[in-house]
Amino acid sequence: MESHEDVNHNDEEHDVENVGEFDGKEEKLWSSMSDRNISITQPLLRKRTNTTSQIAVIGANVCPIESLDYEIIENELFKQDWRSRKKIQIFQYIFLKWGLALLIGLGTGLVGFFSNIAVENIAGFKLLLLNDLMLKENYFKAFLAFAGCNIVLAAAAGTLCAFVAPAAAGSGIPEVKAYLNGVDAPSILAPGTLFVKIFGSILGVSAGFVVGKEGPMVHTGACIANLLGQGGSRKYGLTWACLRYFKNDRDRRDLITCGAAAGVAAAFRAPVGGVLFALEEAASWWRSALLWRTFFTTAVVAIVLRSFIQYCWTGKCGLFGEGGLIMYDVSAAEISTYGIFDILAVIFLGVIGGVLGSFYNYCIDKVLRTYSIINERGPSFRVLLVVIISILTTCCAFFLPWAAKCTPCPADLKVPCPTVGESGNYKSFQCPPGYYNDLASLFLNTNDDAIRNLFSARIVQEFQLSSLLIFFATVYVLGIITYGIAVPAGLFIPVILAGSVYGRLVGRLFVSVSALDTGLFALLGAASFLGGTMRMTVSLCVILLELTNDLLLLPLVMISLLISKTVADCFNKGVYDQIVRLKGLPFMEAHPEPYMKHLVAGDAVSGPLVTFSGVEKVETVLHALQSTKHNGFPVIDEPPFTDSPELCGLVLRSHLLVLLKAKYFSNEQMLSGRDILKKFSPFDFAKPGTGKGLKLEDISITEEEMDMYIDLHPITNASPYTVVETMSLAKAQVLFRQLGLRHMCVVPKSKGRPPVVGILTRHDFMEEHILGLYPHIKSHK
Amino acid sequence: MESHEDVNHNDEEHDVENVGEFDGKEEKLWSSMSDRNISITQPLLRKRTNTTSQIAVIGANVCPIESLDYEIIENELFKQDWRSRKKIQIFQYIFLKWGLALLIGLGTGLVGFFSNIAVENIAGFKLLLLNDLMLKENYFKAFLAFAGCNIVLAAAAGTLCAFVAPAAAGSGIPEVKAYLNGVDAPSILAPGTLFVKIFGSILGVSAGFVVGKEGPMVHTGACIANLLGQGGSRKYGLTWACLRYFKNDRDRRDLITCGAAAGVAAAFRAPVGGVLFALEEAASWWRSALLWRTFFTTAVVAIVLRSFIQYCWTGKCGLFGEGGLIMYDVSAAEISTYGIFDILAVIFLGVIGGVLGSFYNYCIDKVLRTYSIINERGPSFRVLLVVIISILTTCCAFFLPWAAKCTPCPADLKVPCPTVGESGNYKSFQCPPGYYNDLASLFLNTNDDAIRNLFSARIVQEFQLSSLLIFFATVYVLGIITYGIAVPAGLFIPVILAGSVYGRLVGRLFVSVSALDTGLFALLGAASFLGGTMRMTVSLCVILLELTNDLLLLPLVMISLLISKTVADCFNKGVYDQIVRLKGLPFMEAHPEPYMKHLVAGDAVSGPLVTFSGVEKVETVLHALQSTKHNGFPVIDEPPFTDSPELCGLVLRSHLLVLLKAKYFSNEQMLSGRDILKKFSPFDFAKPGTGKGLKLEDISITEEEMDMYIDLHPITNASPYTVVETMSLAKAQVLFRQLGLRHMCVVPKSKGRPPVVGILTRHDFMEEHILGLYPHIKSHK
Repeated sequence: MESHEDVNHNDEEHDVENVGEFDGKEEKLWSSMSDRNISITQPLLRKRTNTTSQIAVIGANVCPIESLDYEIIENELFKQDWRSRKKIQIFQYIFLKWGLALLIGLGTGLVGFFSNIAVENIAGFKLLLLNDLMLKENYFKAFLAFAGCNIVLAAAAGTLCAFVAPAAAGSGIPEVKAYLNGVDAPSILAPGTLFVKIFGSILGVSAGFVVGKEGPMVHTGACIANLLGQGGSRKYGLTWACLRYFKNDRDRRDLITCGAAAGVAAAFRAPVGGVLFALEEAASWWRSALLWRTFFTTAVVAIVLRSFIQYCWTGKCGLFGEGGLIMYDVSAAEISTYGIFDILAVIFLGVIGGVLGSFYNYCIDKVLRTYSIINERGPSFRVLLVVIISILTTCCAFFLPWAAKCTPCPADLKVPCPTVGESGNYKSFQCPPGYYNDLASLFLNTNDDAIRNLFSARIVQEFQLSSLLIFFATVYVLGIITYGIAVPAGLFIPVILAGSVYGRLVGRLFVSVSALDTGLFALLGAASFLGGTMRMTVSLCVILLELTNDLLLLPLVMISLLISKTVADCFNKGVYDQIVRLKGLPFMEAHPEPYMKHLVAGDAVSGPLVTFSGVEKVETVLHALQSTKHNGFPVIDEPPFTDSPELCGLVLRSHLLVLLKAKYFSNEQMLSGRDILKKFSPFDFAKPGTGKGLKLEDISITEEEMDMYIDLHPITNASPYTVVETMSLAKAQVLFRQLGLRHMCVVPKSKGRPPVVGILTRHDFMEEHILGLYPHIKSHK
Repeated sequence: MESHEDVNHNDEEHDVENVGEFDGKEEKLWSSMSDRNISITQPLLRKRTNTTSQIAVIGANVCPIESLDYEIIENELFKQDWRSRKKIQIFQYIFLKWGLALLIGLGTGLVGFFSNIAVENIAGFKLLLLNDLMLKENYFKAFLAFAGCNIVLAAAAGTLCAFVAPAAAGSGIPEVKAYLNGVDAPSILAPGTLFVKIFGSILGVSAGFVVGKEGPMVHTGACIANLLGQGGSRKYGLTWACLRYFKNDRDRRDLITCGAAAGVAAAFRAPVGGVLFALEEAASWWRSALLWRTFFTTAVVAIVLRSFIQYCWTGKCGLFGEGGLIMYDVSAAEISTYGIFDILAVIFLGVIGGVLGSFYNYCIDKVLRTYSIINERGPSFRVLLVVIISILTTCCAFFLPWAAKCTPCPADLKVPCPTVGESGNYKSFQCPPGYYNDLASLFLNTNDDAIRNLFSARIVQEFQLSSLLIFFATVYVLGIITYGIAVPAGLFIPVILAGSVYGRLVGRLFVSVSALDTGLFALLGAASFLGGTMRMTVSLCVILLELTNDLLLLPLVMISLLISKTVADCFNKGVYDQIVRLKGLPFMEAHPEPYMKHLVAGDAVSGPLVTFSGVEKVETVLHALQSTKHNGFPVIDEPPFTDSPELCGLVLRSHLLVLLKAKYFSNEQMLSGRDILKKFSPFDFAKPGTGKGLKLEDISITEEEMDMYIDLHPITNASPYTVVETMSLAKAQVLFRQLGLRHMCVVPKSKGRPPVVGILTRHDFMEEHILGLYPHIKSHK
């Protein structure tokens, strides 16, 4: 029972007040149905239909939400398929799984490398141009050139995103997370989204927005995995028959988990971190075989990136410098020992990170709600918003450095000061030779380079206090207001950037009592802020370690992460969870809410229930498919086939459509026997990608056929998971979530009633639905 | 239905042949029961009782196996407890969870440090003595002293282990793995086992056995967690009332997962590796909250170890040198780039590692089976075996180095050559000044130091080919024959040792075409052999990275691990899985076996089924508790309480005992009402540690009370997970395993039958049981 936009949609408010009562209009509908001699069973529970959480915001539009089928449908056809499978096919299947993991790794690695090269070259060109004009003291022209580049790039990114694929806006991690939880929203992993995600992200980062390309990389990895997993895209004429072996959501889920891990691995060059990210943040279900395959994928990514970087070291990649593929070297900050003051400093950092992080999440939530009003007004408004934010960012970046004093270059440097070229620690900006503008070194660099500058060790006084404060405030605010505009925007980089600035600030406070380097403080600050916003622990820790390549930092990073997460958890949820919620994606939490212990499974069931007989009239089936949007229908064996009505199993809409299309009907109500199985190949019933299956419109049934019968047994899943209506809803939720179900049949406790009470789906466990039915629970919460 | 040592135990063989038939003797027993007017329901399925897999080898003894209760028992008492819980109690609970994680981290860290100090000092003393005597050319005396030390230490370890706690023998990881899967075997986590594990491991490693202290550390961590989790040990007079808050197996499982992670963290100083080990190898159930707490625990361990090492660097820890707390420095082997030949070399290593690893597992299996015959003969024989192996090891270590030629010391070394002191790369042994014996440097060192020597970079020719070959063969064979003797023996170190030797050998083969250092080859060899035996991937990879502190090695380590695991998986299972199986521990695999798809849940149910009425006669309950060893009994509501018999829920043996002890009986068959709930505190029904609950003998019921009635409703879990008898066994297994159940009720499909067909437990899913019932399936497998 996926969506119920039918029947009594208008009576919603009326029904809310009359929970437990039967609506007159509905009754009429039912009676009119029975007039037409159609045996759709009347709803057992006289409650309103579940209209909550059936839709969610994808990109800027509101779309209907379906669930994914992770359960193995054990019908006769499946069993026959499984029995007839030869060794070679099993081998082919295993080989393909690993082959696809390899391809995902290669693809994501290549995209990661390509987007780095592109960003470094585009942003590098822009920054070189600015540098040249500033050196010539052509300040106004410099501003115009800089602003012009930024706005053009931003507008291009915004246009792509707003007009081509709105689902590509934002980080993409919440969407991937929801998908891996079993939420099937249209176009979140479509080829169009992939295209816009890659190019929009390149343009957006090059435009100087305070956004990262890390979140988009995760989404990109997942999109690549989806594209390969469903054997290409029919819409774009890219189809590979050999990849069509995966025709179920379970295998695709595994691939997309690999893709998400590959994305992180490509973004941070952190293969282990990628695996842990997929495990801790992205995936809802995990098994150890998946650990291994994910690990393989990220290893491939690491090798691809490494090879290309070796190639680029020879200078053949244009302006691609150290900047691409971030890898921060804080090993210069040698830590042999640390004492009680150092630990105190880290704890202090953790607390600040927690507070700032949870406030960041709070602000992002508010800003997203505000932006959604603008976004609703159409694509042009979305592009306008992008341009406005771009102008704001450009102005900050260009004008704020004027507020900083020129600092004399430190003696005995190994690098030239002021910096020559597009990136470096010591930007000259408006300063005379021998001096550098520290704020310009932060603002007028790519974000990756700014972070590298902040992490740079040894020279404590490299940045003035005032510069750090200005930069922190700007980045914090820009990070908040940039997320949510129609541009692929990762959250990692803004958070690392802001975190490392206040880390360096705190380092300055503790400089007299702590032996730790200020560059190290910047790293710990980044860790604490990441912990405060994203609330991951092990994966962030490993990603930071892989970024800095120094395992001796581990205990300090751990402390700061743990403390900031603990502090922030007192205030609100992690930023990705918050966005998932905000978008209305029906995410199944791992643990049942406490109020669920007060309810039983029967309490959450919503009508109308539509059931079929084991051998059903074609007209009934067709009518049910037309009049409801349910995805699963219980099949009930009735006399003469059994002594009394009993639950035979569950049949899926998609399977029904295939069976109807094949038109194996009979004139009498009789079992079709096993011969029918031979007429189908298992691939006929395989689940195609999102929105690609047979549609009701594809089927034409003649008037004569309407009165014939169809045997549903061969396609009925005879082992659906069931719960008794009196089972506590909390335990039913655990069962539903742990096994990754889409439908759960609720059966009556006492005898003498129809054998199924209703079906629970993902939507029936959502807070909105349950608290809508039982508003009095709210207060107990 | 946990164990059925009752009824028809003697008819086992007879029954196997008459599957599906009813045994005459049993029938008589049932009829005699009904004569006595006891309403134990007759078994619905007339099959033999499940007598397989109810026992397992723990230490050297065969013990009965129970399961752990991970399911939340939602009876009225639980609900009342949950409702009445105040905020302060919830806070106390959370605080205690984190407090215990802290304590486990501290405890495991301390034990890890202590055992390192002890080993370094004992082994150091022994090696110094040997060195001195060898320098004086007092060869015979040297051998006697060396052998004497070794045999005394070995005998002490063996005696401790054989007489005090046989369960402490071996690695301990299989036992921890089984416990976390839900297997409750007596004494595997008892305080006695903890004591012997710590001291036995110290003595065993000091005695020069080819064993590690890493596996035992994992077991130690788990034991510490268990001790804290059940609030101390009554037997040893160590009880802490404040820790008694955790009275269910679910919370204890979480703690023991933390303990296992802490063990790895302490053994390898690898906090992230510890978390991943717990996730990949140890735990069967995982949730993200646990990830966080585990991470906290290992962070504490890392900090404790770091502080103590800083203390020891001041020279206050006796002979504690670099040797303790292994941390290998291969960063000297700088790898900037690697080419196709290097990758080929690594692939070659991986293949060798896979083949050698699976052969290692095969041999260990055979040796363990042989040893079990010796071990059965009694503790003295076990000690004798330990002494024999010790003599063999000593002879190898002392006499084989004579076969090596003396090598001249390399020029411009930073360390003295020959080595002065107890550890070092260049042991003089019998060689003249200016020369060293390379084989002695490997044999006459602690295993940790030998590994460090093998990993040492730069000097390719440090070890002669012949020496490496001799050492490899010796270590490989000794590693196999040492595991299984009555000494706590980790598998990590023998495997790393053997792996690094052949890694170095392969490095020598590729020296002309590969730019990689031979020390690096040793590391990769260790990785490949670990992959081939233990079949972990991510956790091993991270442990090795944390050991060597060089993340640039990652891709190479990954390749060698993945290839060796793939190759080895073609031959057999991982070594820990193999040992779990060998010991007969009823481990629930994550995935159902293919043959389970052919069967339905009803097929695996075994009798006799004992059910109770909602309000039952005391005599019936008592008799059922006496005559069976079942742990769970379905409760069936019958008229007059309901219209027809229906399944009310499931009641646990331990709860029944508490209720009987309290003697709230009534003379008539009536409901006791909710007042009874007030007379119990939730802690009365809390589950105590293994083997500590109320026993049947503690309860005395008078003849008069026997005829009274007892209301079982308040303690009945009204939401047991149920499956329909026609559900495929594979899906039932998934449900059982994913939710961590102990009992699963099987209900009939058709009406008009008793409301429960039987109960499935862990044992009913075991291969032995199912293939015993359906021998014809075997051939299809």
